[in-house]
Amino acid sequence: MKVAIVMGSISDKKIAMDAKEVLDNFDIENELRVISAHRTPKIAFDFAEKLEENGFDLVIAIAGKAAHLAGVLASITILPVIGVPAKSSTLDGLDSLLSTVQMPKGVPVATVAIDGGYNAGILAAEILSIGNISLREKLKAHKEKIESETIKNDKEFREN
Amino acid sequence: MKVAIVMGSISDKKIAMDAKEVLDNFDIENELRVISAHRTPKIAFDFAEKLEENGFDLVIAIAGKAAHLAGVLASITILPVIGVPAKSSTLDGLDSLLSTVQMPKGVPVATVAIDGGYNAGILAAEILSIGNISLREKLKAHKEKIESETIKNDKEFREN
Amino acid sequence: MKVAIVMGSISDKKIAMDAKEVLDNFDIENELRVISAHRTPKIAFDFAEKLEENGFDLVIAIAGKAAHLAGVLASITILPVIGVPAKSSTLDGLDSLLSTVQMPKGVPVATVAIDGGYNAGILAAEILSIGNISLREKLKAHKEKIESETIKNDKEFREN
Amino acid sequence: MKVAIVMGSISDKKIAMDAKEVLDNFDIENELRVISAHRTPKIAFDFAEKLEENGFDLVIAIAGKAAHLAGVLASITILPVIGVPAKSSTLDGLDSLLSTVQMPKGVPVATVAIDGGYNAGILAAEILSIGNISLREKLKAHKEKIESETIKNDKEFREN
Amino acid sequence: MKVAIVMGSISDKKIAMDAKEVLDNFDIENELRVISAHRTPKIAFDFAEKLEENGFDLVIAIAGKAAHLAGVLASITILPVIGVPAKSSTLDGLDSLLSTVQMPKGVPVATVAIDGGYNAGILAAEILSIGNISLREKLKAHKEKIESETIKNDKEFREN
Amino acid sequence: MKVAIVMGSISDKKIAMDAKEVLDNFDIENELRVISAHRTPKIAFDFAEKLEENGFDLVIAIAGKAAHLAGVLASITILPVIGVPAKSSTLDGLDSLLSTVQMPKGVPVATVAIDGGYNAGILAAEILSIGNISLREKLKAHKEKIESETIKNDKEFREN
Amino acid sequence: MKVAIVMGSISDKKIAMDAKEVLDNFDIENELRVISAHRTPKIAFDFAEKLEENGFDLVIAIAGKAAHLAGVLASITILPVIGVPAKSSTLDGLDSLLSTVQMPKGVPVATVAIDGGYNAGILAAEILSIGNISLREKLKAHKEKIESETIKNDKEFREN
Amino acid sequence: MKVAIVMGSISDKKIAMDAKEVLDNFDIENELRVISAHRTPKIAFDFAEKLEENGFDLVIAIAGKAAHLAGVLASITILPVIGVPAKSSTLDGLDSLLSTVQMPKGVPVATVAIDGGYNAGILAAEILSIGNISLREKLKAHKEKIESETIKNDKEFREN
Repeated sequence: MKVAIVMGSISDKKIAMDAKEVLDNFDIENELRVISAHRTPKIAFDFAEKLEENGFDLVIAIAGKAAHLAGVLASITILPVIGVPAKSSTLDGLDSLLSTVQMPKGVPVATVAIDGGYNAGILAAEILSIGNISLREKLKAHKEKIESETIKNDKEFREN
Repeated sequence: MKVAIVMGSISDKKIAMDAKEVLDNFDIENELRVISAHRTPKIAFDFAEKLEENGFDLVIAIAGKAAHLAGVLASITILPVIGVPAKSSTLDGLDSLLSTVQMPKGVPVATVAIDGGYNAGILAAEILSIGNISLREKLKAHKEKIESETIKNDKEFREN
Repeated sequence: MKVAIVMGSISDKKIAMDAKEVLDNFDIENELRVISAHRTPKIAFDFAEKLEENGFDLVIAIAGKAAHLAGVLASITILPVIGVPAKSSTLDGLDSLLSTVQMPKGVPVATVAIDGGYNAGILAAEILSIGNISLREKLKAHKEKIESETIKNDKEFREN
Repeated sequence: MKVAIVMGSISDKKIAMDAKEVLDNFDIENELRVISAHRTPKIAFDFAEKLEENGFDLVIAIAGKAAHLAGVLASITILPVIGVPAKSSTLDGLDSLLSTVQMPKGVPVATVAIDGGYNAGILAAEILSIGNISLREKLKAHKEKIESETIKNDKEFREN
Repeated sequence: MKVAIVMGSISDKKIAMDAKEVLDNFDIENELRVISAHRTPKIAFDFAEKLEENGFDLVIAIAGKAAHLAGVLASITILPVIGVPAKSSTLDGLDSLLSTVQMPKGVPVATVAIDGGYNAGILAAEILSIGNISLREKLKAHKEKIESETIKNDKEFREN
Repeated sequence: MKVAIVMGSISDKKIAMDAKEVLDNFDIENELRVISAHRTPKIAFDFAEKLEENGFDLVIAIAGKAAHLAGVLASITILPVIGVPAKSSTLDGLDSLLSTVQMPKGVPVATVAIDGGYNAGILAAEILSIGNISLREKLKAHKEKIESETIKNDKEFREN
Repeated sequence: MKVAIVMGSISDKKIAMDAKEVLDNFDIENELRVISAHRTPKIAFDFAEKLEENGFDLVIAIAGKAAHLAGVLASITILPVIGVPAKSSTLDGLDSLLSTVQMPKGVPVATVAIDGGYNAGILAAEILSIGNISLREKLKAHKEKIESETIKNDKEFREN
Repeated sequence: MKVAIVMGSISDKKIAMDAKEVLDNFDIENELRVISAHRTPKIAFDFAEKLEENGFDLVIAIAGKAAHLAGVLASITILPVIGVPAKSSTLDGLDSLLSTVQMPKGVPVATVAIDGGYNAGILAAEILSIGNISLREKLKAHKEKIESETIKNDKEFREN
């Protein structure tokens, strides 16, 4: 059970670390990479081709603007690719979102919210939990944790 | 290995059938349902709660406008939820897309393109193929098939 | 005469307090809650089911991004639900607005402007003033107050 | 218990009839009017001023493009104003939606979905049902009806 | 020759002063007012009705969000109404722009750029210069001035 | 009193004829031209330079997509330029609207609604009516006419 | 002097033929290909790598939705890549435009208008005309031709 | 081999300097100009007419809002025109992008990303490298440089 977290640029580092933290908390092995669909296309291509061979189960790809990284990886591998659109300095992330999600017939990218590194981590865990009882328990505990945080916030409000 | 395909309204039938056809072709058991987050919230709730118990591994949820179906299911189950935004009569699917993909921290929806029922099916197969060699082979054959179709189109162009 | 003000996250607190302040000024009983459609779906469900029983007349629901809170409550209760889209860190509130307002046939949400907590309070008062002469008087006084503030601003401009 | 349904132009007739049909089904007295904020401003003004005097409890205002009708009525009356943005020949209803919902502080419009005449009718019924047991029963029956329609659609799918 | 500059809220003051400064520089009499279509509708109505009687030749109306001010004035007066959409805290001025410019058949508003107070002043001067040779000369001098400023900037670049 | 109506392409003919019809009805002399900012830039330039000399008082410019026609004319002439954004085959007129209205400081275009040829004609008449009592009477009659049409529509509804 | 015209899908054929027709008219050798960044990534990769070797001077790439084709080619070749966003069944081409034009630092795509196959051909000719007198003459003749067509349309209008 | 870099306003200076720096690094002669399509139209016109005569091979035009500069130059010259949309204070650059890219049939502008001065420089170099081996080598070196920067970033991540 191993996940690749690929960011298109080091400016996406915070989003990548959000994903990594989730995976670490769920004890899911992961590897952080900086690979650009546009600046290192051959590396992206080779990386995608060897994902299975290198023992990866799925990929999280983070990119902004004309965000092709997730789509490029998905065009080569049959592993599920989770795409995280990164907000850039213009257009508030709309360009990244549309470039990531609007994939053509046959080549899907599992897109999460703009800047949604945390959710990419959770989605990866959910996917890997199929047939994995211990991971399912952790996900249920996570659901309870975020539930109880909201309940705590609610309680504080009601008592004040 | 079983997938639930849920549409919010029978007007989403064509998109649901696109997903079903893919799953059938990959010999993945699936069940088609019409469940509305807004018109049958209790059924949606119960359905989501019993997904694991009923042997489902993941859910494809199709809805339009303020498309809450995928998000509502994802709020309850820890199974991966694939969301398909359906284009409706106004705003060209932008409302459906944003309502499906922009999920808050902790509760992801794996969103595919607007009206992307086919891709939801492929993504489901990719997810289920983790640790499943036979399904992986089928996915590779699918990748080769769409590749060869494009090659055939290319060839026809070049010969004419 | 009692209004529930529900925020999906404590980050929406300011908007909720704007609504509360209006209701307090109109002597309308109200209760502030933190309930998330996505993180505490069961609580949201139960809360909506018991709204009438608990003496509420209407609900103000505040949420951002894929803002499902108002829609989820409206799917269960027949009380009027006022939805306030909250601006989040990306897309400038457009996602929240469309997720709140574009509800399907049969399940309306009375949507006000992005971040419009104050207006949600006024709308609640208007709704509750039907058949309530004393509240109508207060609303007329409010209309006069905002009118006279603008007149005062106008006067200062003209005298300078 | 009386509702005014005002359309800004006869091109909005279908939307107005959707609202009227709902109100008729709920036995809520209503009156259909064609009043334009831009072409008959004095009539709009007088109409808004006399709404209470003429026994109306709330207003449904339907308009497209730079849709000012709901806002103009809301600036004068303290009755709740439900705004229905009408899709026009360009911009797919986005102009109508933003012109209707983005009201300034102090003057709310309860906005429903683009072309949402039916939902405007339901929202009106919900508002009028506060303190009206018989109307509440009808709304609950309506909720059950739309629920059972979806259940029926679901059943047909599962049996075929 | 007299122009009314009306802002919907004192938060639009900077834009109004930009317009005023242009008119002052062109020696065009003008009057600054704070009148809100939504908070002081009767004053707006009366103001529009008496524009001709009070010697005004045209109106500049500045407003944000669901910006109805220009449209409301234009519905009553036959004087040309110049609309300036003001950027507000959400949606980057798109709501203001569409609410101002997308007027229905028969009731135009002469819309300038978002936050374009300066240009509203120039447009007013252009309109008033029809048949006014001295004002035309001033406009030509203004065109030469902005031309020479750009030429000066160009020169500095080329010399450095 | 003479108005130039310039369309950037004969595909904008219907919009131009809408403007012309209004001007003809108001007995305002006008001339229809097909001049493209992009395909006949020299003609556009010369045309703009000689507008005053040729006795024109204002210009209506109609163009779609990257609609530069109005802006190009406004950069040269000091006559008021009314811009009509034409809806083209993609983007629903948003490109035309933004290209026409978002003019830089110093060079305004008086923009009307997308495809708003009729309103461009009315705005031209309003501008030319400054200091022209007979034209003002016609504009007042026009306002009464569109008012009475709406009143008639309203009456028919109420009687049926 | 040879241009590659690559379409991502045969559904883009019309746009590709528009480009081809222009190049044929300018006697510029060209080759039409169907190559998909997503369905035939290896072919796209190899094709881009051998562009120079195969005697191409520039590439026109046509694609819709999450339109990565132009960007993928540009990531590999140093030849200029002209990108044509193709309008697809949803979002009116906005997704294609943003995916094509918003390329990251270092890897430009020369983007033309949505569905702008004709203009891609002209731009290719302009680029190839650098240092090519005979092609420059043809481009000048083309400019005169489109100018005279507009002049002819103008004349017909003025004579009728 | 000479490139003109034209900015519409000195507020676009940073973008222009980004382009200049690239061209300087590639030893491509260039000239920086401040010329506004709207404030200095005659200069823009003359400048475009004399581009060939003055030895320029292509033009980079940078402008914001209703960004006509690139289009105006392209309407006159047959040299390739690269357009850079500049983000302005409202609408996040969407107006600039659409005004630059959506050019009508026959008059293309090679548009790069919003604020993409650097990429405009690279695109210029790519265009000028046709038939220029030494420039091609430099472009290949540039591609290797940006590749190795990403590889270095990747390495640092993997070692930490």
